[in-house]
Amino acid sequence: MGPPPSGGVIVAIGDDCAVYRPHGAKEDLVFTTDMMHEGRHFLAETHSAQDVGYKAIARALSDIAAVGASPRFSLLSLALTAKTDQAWVEQFYKGYLSLAMAHGAPLIGGDTAKADAVSCDVIVCGGVPRGKALLRSGAKPGDGIFVSGELGGSALGLRTRAGAAWKRHVRPKPRLELGFHLRANKIASACMDLSDGLSTDLHRLVKASGVSADLEGPLPTFEGASLEEALHGGEDYELLFTAARKVRVGEEFKGLRLTRIGTIMKEGRTQVTWRGQPLPALGWDHFSK
Amino acid sequence: MGPPPSGGVIVAIGDDCAVYRPHGAKEDLVFTTDMMHEGRHFLAETHSAQDVGYKAIARALSDIAAVGASPRFSLLSLALTAKTDQAWVEQFYKGYLSLAMAHGAPLIGGDTAKADAVSCDVIVCGGVPRGKALLRSGAKPGDGIFVSGELGGSALGLRTRAGAAWKRHVRPKPRLELGFHLRANKIASACMDLSDGLSTDLHRLVKASGVSADLEGPLPTFEGASLEEALHGGEDYELLFTAARKVRVGEEFKGLRLTRIGTIMKEGRTQVTWRGQPLPALGWDHFSK
Repeated sequence: MGPPPSGGVIVAIGDDCAVYRPHGAKEDLVFTTDMMHEGRHFLAETHSAQDVGYKAIARALSDIAAVGASPRFSLLSLALTAKTDQAWVEQFYKGYLSLAMAHGAPLIGGDTAKADAVSCDVIVCGGVPRGKALLRSGAKPGDGIFVSGELGGSALGLRTRAGAAWKRHVRPKPRLELGFHLRANKIASACMDLSDGLSTDLHRLVKASGVSADLEGPLPTFEGASLEEALHGGEDYELLFTAARKVRVGEEFKGLRLTRIGTIMKEGRTQVTWRGQPLPALGWDHFSK
Repeated sequence: MGPPPSGGVIVAIGDDCAVYRPHGAKEDLVFTTDMMHEGRHFLAETHSAQDVGYKAIARALSDIAAVGASPRFSLLSLALTAKTDQAWVEQFYKGYLSLAMAHGAPLIGGDTAKADAVSCDVIVCGGVPRGKALLRSGAKPGDGIFVSGELGGSALGLRTRAGAAWKRHVRPKPRLELGFHLRANKIASACMDLSDGLSTDLHRLVKASGVSADLEGPLPTFEGASLEEALHGGEDYELLFTAARKVRVGEEFKGLRLTRIGTIMKEGRTQVTWRGQPLPALGWDHFSK
């Protein structure tokens, strides 16, 4: 078969994206895949087809943002039922393509199938300068812990199904510009996106970095959301990142609030505490719910 | 955001793979995605977990073979139910990884989720010299039409659930070495894999190439399979390719039979005939069954 590439796999399973280095290329390519299933990730009664299409790619773009990459293209595998009507499909694509094109992730391929429930799997490829992808594993003791935007909005929206919080739930904004900024200007030492809730995701970050974390708060909480929702609610798709003490992070980036919420502590037990007390990972676990 | 790549998308939706050219890279990257759903593509009662995992990536590798590429890596999105047991998952991965590693397609990322039925989506990336991916669109009038191996075995296996035909159905062999050979030695003018049945897939090839095709037969038929199964049965995962008159194809490649089954006719109505009579596309249509 073909000659082995002199490039190869740089980062495999465990980070927001896998990283592949094409032989001779000027940039590394990063890849993420993200599934959504009707009845689990969305409901036909409450989620419009356009919102489903939008969110399907928003979630994957958020992973691209987390590593500081720029989207290059996307692939979509879409399973429909015998009852799915053409209008639903058209609206799904409308939502998908509007966000994909806005962020430079044209749809270039995929698969379609009939199934007993609607589901989709979105793959986004991004580009990042060689060796520069932001990873979860770079946090060092003494680094500050930061989040973008406000937390708990998506969980609040899922509970109330109304207002700005619901909009946040169905139309999360992938923080691509922020991720690019954090990487290109060497601000973040580690970064990931908040898909499964701060408590769960921060546990992943400290584990990957071999450090501990103490959250001091106060958390930037979405208006009306509870502290529980801010700590454990998933699907905010904000960026969680760390930065060395000497780095100036700023209080906002292009109108998006940046808040210091804690400090990376010395290595060892890879634990997460909230004001000194152990904080369990109570966010979304893909295999418990 | 990041600078636009000077490379870019070379082939988008409509061929076996999408083709992307990383800026500065020595090879083009090709991508395919392939979904399987329990109850549609496999049954828990008849398909072992290992067979499901094997077939999930075999189908995607077959698309990589069709464009003459060499696998580089794979991604897997896997949805399991609350009832899926750990042994099933382990056996699935065993089947998947055995074939993935044998063909140089290590699993480097993906997604997992809970859903109401088991399903998976496999993404395989392959590498091919710049501009050299074999496409469906290169067939020219006068070219011979060829297939590898025997046809109808998978359909026969699905009908009888026994013997070599059933093995063919659950463990199709991606023709990666043949695809590489057809491309590297400039034998094929167009190529695709037979996933949905000869009649349906050949219609796609003539449409992409803007030509017509006449099948003269006789077809290389899997022992025990009917002519109907050879013409319209899906999932044989053999290669269908065309070659110019002056090119020597050979009667076999490393023990795999190669059979001339027809001729590409002049451009125009993009029709397919069987011994002069119109041949309808009666294979698997993803959106009719």
